[in-house]
Amino acid sequence: MISFENDYTTGAHPQILQRLSETNLEPVTGYGMDPYCESAREKIRKACGCPEAEVFFLAGGTQTNAVVISSMLNGYEGVVAAETGHINVHEAGAIEHTGHKVLALPEHEGKIDPGELEEFLQKFYQDESYEHMAFPGMAYVSHPTEYGTLYRKKELEAIGEICRKYQMPLFLDGARLGYGLMSEESDMSLKDIAEICDVFYIGGTKVGALCGEAVVFPGNRGPKHFLTMIKQNGALLAKGRLLGIQFDTLFTDDLYLDLGRHGIEMAERLKKVLKEKGCSFYQESPTNQQFVILKNSQAEELKKHVSFSVWEKLDQDRTVIRLVTSWSTRPEDIERLGELL
Amino acid sequence: MISFENDYTTGAHPQILQRLSETNLEPVTGYGMDPYCESAREKIRKACGCPEAEVFFLAGGTQTNAVVISSMLNGYEGVVAAETGHINVHEAGAIEHTGHKVLALPEHEGKIDPGELEEFLQKFYQDESYEHMAFPGMAYVSHPTEYGTLYRKKELEAIGEICRKYQMPLFLDGARLGYGLMSEESDMSLKDIAEICDVFYIGGTKVGALCGEAVVFPGNRGPKHFLTMIKQNGALLAKGRLLGIQFDTLFTDDLYLDLGRHGIEMAERLKKVLKEKGCSFYQESPTNQQFVILKNSQAEELKKHVSFSVWEKLDQDRTVIRLVTSWSTRPEDIERLGELL
Amino acid sequence: MISFENDYTTGAHPQILQRLSETNLEPVTGYGMDPYCESAREKIRKACGCPEAEVFFLAGGTQTNAVVISSMLNGYEGVVAAETGHINVHEAGAIEHTGHKVLALPEHEGKIDPGELEEFLQKFYQDESYEHMAFPGMAYVSHPTEYGTLYRKKELEAIGEICRKYQMPLFLDGARLGYGLMSEESDMSLKDIAEICDVFYIGGTKVGALCGEAVVFPGNRGPKHFLTMIKQNGALLAKGRLLGIQFDTLFTDDLYLDLGRHGIEMAERLKKVLKEKGCSFYQESPTNQQFVILKNSQAEELKKHVSFSVWEKLDQDRTVIRLVTSWSTRPEDIERLGELL
Amino acid sequence: MISFENDYTTGAHPQILQRLSETNLEPVTGYGMDPYCESAREKIRKACGCPEAEVFFLAGGTQTNAVVISSMLNGYEGVVAAETGHINVHEAGAIEHTGHKVLALPEHEGKIDPGELEEFLQKFYQDESYEHMAFPGMAYVSHPTEYGTLYRKKELEAIGEICRKYQMPLFLDGARLGYGLMSEESDMSLKDIAEICDVFYIGGTKVGALCGEAVVFPGNRGPKHFLTMIKQNGALLAKGRLLGIQFDTLFTDDLYLDLGRHGIEMAERLKKVLKEKGCSFYQESPTNQQFVILKNSQAEELKKHVSFSVWEKLDQDRTVIRLVTSWSTRPEDIERLGELL
Repeated sequence: MISFENDYTTGAHPQILQRLSETNLEPVTGYGMDPYCESAREKIRKACGCPEAEVFFLAGGTQTNAVVISSMLNGYEGVVAAETGHINVHEAGAIEHTGHKVLALPEHEGKIDPGELEEFLQKFYQDESYEHMAFPGMAYVSHPTEYGTLYRKKELEAIGEICRKYQMPLFLDGARLGYGLMSEESDMSLKDIAEICDVFYIGGTKVGALCGEAVVFPGNRGPKHFLTMIKQNGALLAKGRLLGIQFDTLFTDDLYLDLGRHGIEMAERLKKVLKEKGCSFYQESPTNQQFVILKNSQAEELKKHVSFSVWEKLDQDRTVIRLVTSWSTRPEDIERLGELL
Repeated sequence: MISFENDYTTGAHPQILQRLSETNLEPVTGYGMDPYCESAREKIRKACGCPEAEVFFLAGGTQTNAVVISSMLNGYEGVVAAETGHINVHEAGAIEHTGHKVLALPEHEGKIDPGELEEFLQKFYQDESYEHMAFPGMAYVSHPTEYGTLYRKKELEAIGEICRKYQMPLFLDGARLGYGLMSEESDMSLKDIAEICDVFYIGGTKVGALCGEAVVFPGNRGPKHFLTMIKQNGALLAKGRLLGIQFDTLFTDDLYLDLGRHGIEMAERLKKVLKEKGCSFYQESPTNQQFVILKNSQAEELKKHVSFSVWEKLDQDRTVIRLVTSWSTRPEDIERLGELL
Repeated sequence: MISFENDYTTGAHPQILQRLSETNLEPVTGYGMDPYCESAREKIRKACGCPEAEVFFLAGGTQTNAVVISSMLNGYEGVVAAETGHINVHEAGAIEHTGHKVLALPEHEGKIDPGELEEFLQKFYQDESYEHMAFPGMAYVSHPTEYGTLYRKKELEAIGEICRKYQMPLFLDGARLGYGLMSEESDMSLKDIAEICDVFYIGGTKVGALCGEAVVFPGNRGPKHFLTMIKQNGALLAKGRLLGIQFDTLFTDDLYLDLGRHGIEMAERLKKVLKEKGCSFYQESPTNQQFVILKNSQAEELKKHVSFSVWEKLDQDRTVIRLVTSWSTRPEDIERLGELL
Repeated sequence: MISFENDYTTGAHPQILQRLSETNLEPVTGYGMDPYCESAREKIRKACGCPEAEVFFLAGGTQTNAVVISSMLNGYEGVVAAETGHINVHEAGAIEHTGHKVLALPEHEGKIDPGELEEFLQKFYQDESYEHMAFPGMAYVSHPTEYGTLYRKKELEAIGEICRKYQMPLFLDGARLGYGLMSEESDMSLKDIAEICDVFYIGGTKVGALCGEAVVFPGNRGPKHFLTMIKQNGALLAKGRLLGIQFDTLFTDDLYLDLGRHGIEMAERLKKVLKEKGCSFYQESPTNQQFVILKNSQAEELKKHVSFSVWEKLDQDRTVIRLVTSWSTRPEDIERLGELL
């Protein structure tokens, strides 16, 4: 059985496990105050080009979204997101659970459109009864999106400008950021992102870590007592070292980018194989998630040998499946997939 | 200045004020345990044809929606509603504030479509990752809707059947129920509604009371300790008599229906005048809210003499305005409006 | 049956009902934007000596506490209160329902002690792990307290100073403020309270209104978009006039103080009668709530003719009962009570 | 520098790291549906003697408490706990953040007293106004407690019986359960705990894991859709394997108990050394946390060579410090500590 089910099916990059072993019995203080976390923070600040940044480590994506968003919103505010945004669909209502509405905008290949965002905000404040509505208090973008697509730098800048105009922070969910950064279509670096966004997170879970996401507030304007907010949300690991060591390793010698690059290379190879086999794509994706249209029978057959997720039924006869590569995808698995198709 | 701004611009029906005066100095116990509340409950049970019903009085609509919905949902559930539903738009995120997502369906003249509801539910449970999504835990309908439209009995029955199939309670928001019941297009009585819905409320604020909504659980299957939930939400009036006396009056000699009838008669007269003046309607409405398309200049001019709300800009040149009649609308105000157009 | 059960057993002062009648059919805008609310706000600002104050009207006490406290606290903060404080005991967990802890201090006749407050705050910030604890973010005092007692001006000033030192707002719950202001033991005016507190409310429900509490932010530093927070909490009455007219009446010609004075005079008369009858008091109270120790048999007997609440069992043989006077207490009822004892 | 700061200062038991390495590149499904989680669940069910039990893995203690408690309580309920209970003090208000009150009982060496619990419950339901108060909906005990003390089996049974009588589930927080089970004073096995409690968790973070707590519902009566509740609270790790492999290792060949035993042996040795040095104890503790009274100067001096936490200032001259042993404590560190004292 080979797996293209997701980018979190395997463990961690071996260097991470090695560092965990090497440092294992050294006693350090808890809750992210240890030297490994501090070192990781410093390396991330450098990689982002913002020496003043506040950096926090959390365990997973939904948790990070909920803690960041609820800590930055005022009570009367909601968060604007694409209707297909992870926070609007696949987080079991975690944002609403913190008391805030997700204000859904139309999606375009998984992205929000700057023009539509501005129109939404204009309309909101022009509405006679806007004080009776949840205020737009933050914009959320995922990059890559849930469809594997990427914002162009110009698009993100446009969104950032609108956010500043309406005094809303811009939050970028980078659960798969490593793959986004290394995509051939990417025209943004970590530094660009840090310059444009008010807060973002660098995903570890899907890019080679056992768990962990690094939240970055580039401008040192994170919420007051954010550590206590993390604790209150049950998101503060006692052994913060587990996260610190992982991110310290990922941000040593550009390992994080290398892992992203591998995932992208495997995705490109996968696309090539799929195209050779005559598969058509539901959506063009320049990153590590590929959405492929199969006949139902073909999908059924493939399921016997390959694990993947069914995205949706396209029509009576055809199914959209999602194939995902990662830092740990092996070329031989892609070859094998080609043979099976 | 004449007003078609809303159905809560005037005070209460004079009989209500009179009853408040007559009973004013009589000491009674608080929190809805007084004889007036009990009498009102009994009359409402009778009017609804369900002698077992539990009846509670709350002060306003948003409050009622939030308390009822959050008390009936499990933590992992959201509430299904039309995208134009009051809870999804004009309650400042009150439902999300209680921790629950509003799951928005497309609207058709303000209503949800039974077929689309069923399709949504089917798709939800067919989704591989439905456990990562907010569960549909209740259906919410407003009747009349925010557009003044009404469900046909057959439609509501279909929705109720789907709800039972998926074990979701059906909740009807009757903020303007009096006008709905008296509309010429209505084919449902209070008894029908009580038979079809698991919970609904009879709106007082917009139908002749100073404040107050009566929540009815027809089957005596209301949430456990609902009184404490009301209290916890800050929705339990110390002087429950204020609500009890009002509903007791409204449900004496069919006053509630009489007030609804008056609002409808005025709406019909208003429609006639508008049509005579050549106005076109944004939406056909059989109840007390009328959505009229005016030229911008016409709307500006009218604003000097009449208060109303601007619904939306239709295009560059035209505006949709909302004109609302009520139990207290006077025929002469409609005539005057006609003269002004 | 005569009643000393509470100060909300009767309706409203007749002048209020009269004003409601007089203005009844005049159409005004909703949600507290009507001229009656504006007039009431202006009179309250004047009575409080703070022309800049923001004033909002809500329907009841628990609601007011929950909305004010949750709107002013940051997510990581709780509210400090006496263990007997209303928010800590008799509001069904309404504060926690908004996500915030009540940090209970020992009570002294229902009051918190400034020295103990300061010690608590010092200890908090000295604790190595204070970032793992709910921060003290506001101090809550009730005045009169749940035991009818009053803060001396010096005490409240001391508390206010500590609050400023620790950058916590001071909130005074004045559900029974009218009785507090008129007590012979009071050395504070409304202006004093407005000077010392960051926010307080003037209770209407228990001092002659049908419902309603007036929240005052003396320094015009209320929470941003507080109206939307009120709406989101289901606490915004559509017919705001109901609250505006009541407070406008209460603050015309000092009616509010007159009603407070009557309640106090009746309480003094009641105390005199009780003392003549040899009753002993559980707690000295200078306001309208009196806590009296009766033999169980005596309490049982009295219950047949008088409604009151049982405060607690003192021991095997004796019960503490609470007798409450109000703006509507009649001298003849006190006489009758004396005869019954 | 040697450390007695806590039981989470080092990494994981080496066997855990080895298993993580061995299984690292094997692709498995996420969210706890992998074979390692399943195997761990099976072993835990066996160790607890309840083949029907539902078992879930979460990352940390505060998270586990918040998710379990909020999932099991009704909206109108709070959780009863000792005033020193972890949920009442050191979780930054995480329980209240979920909307529920912590109902604090007096503590006796960190424990609640069955008699006082029953009295509290009796009084609650006897109170005339209990419907205006947060209902006691669950009892929370920590075992070992925050003071290192243990419930006797008889005590826990008594609490369990009271809980059943009042229809409240009993929840045992076993963050340090391994040390509790292996204490010489313990008279309870895992099976006993599973028999008495409705839900409990077996702490991994403090007993040899990198992170992780195993929640056990012995009677297969866990909350409906608990997985979705975990997700909604941001507590569902994508790579569930991280938790599964750890617990599978801990429950292979009784490793968990061995680690507990080592921590206890080290604690006994530490106590011996401390007694030899004439130290007095603030509190007798039969588990791995020791509370020692030092002169301030002595504590200052020790701080230069040993990391520990300051529990509290006992008086002007003396400080209570906490020394904690664990599965990874080395005998030589204890000897060294002895030399330093």
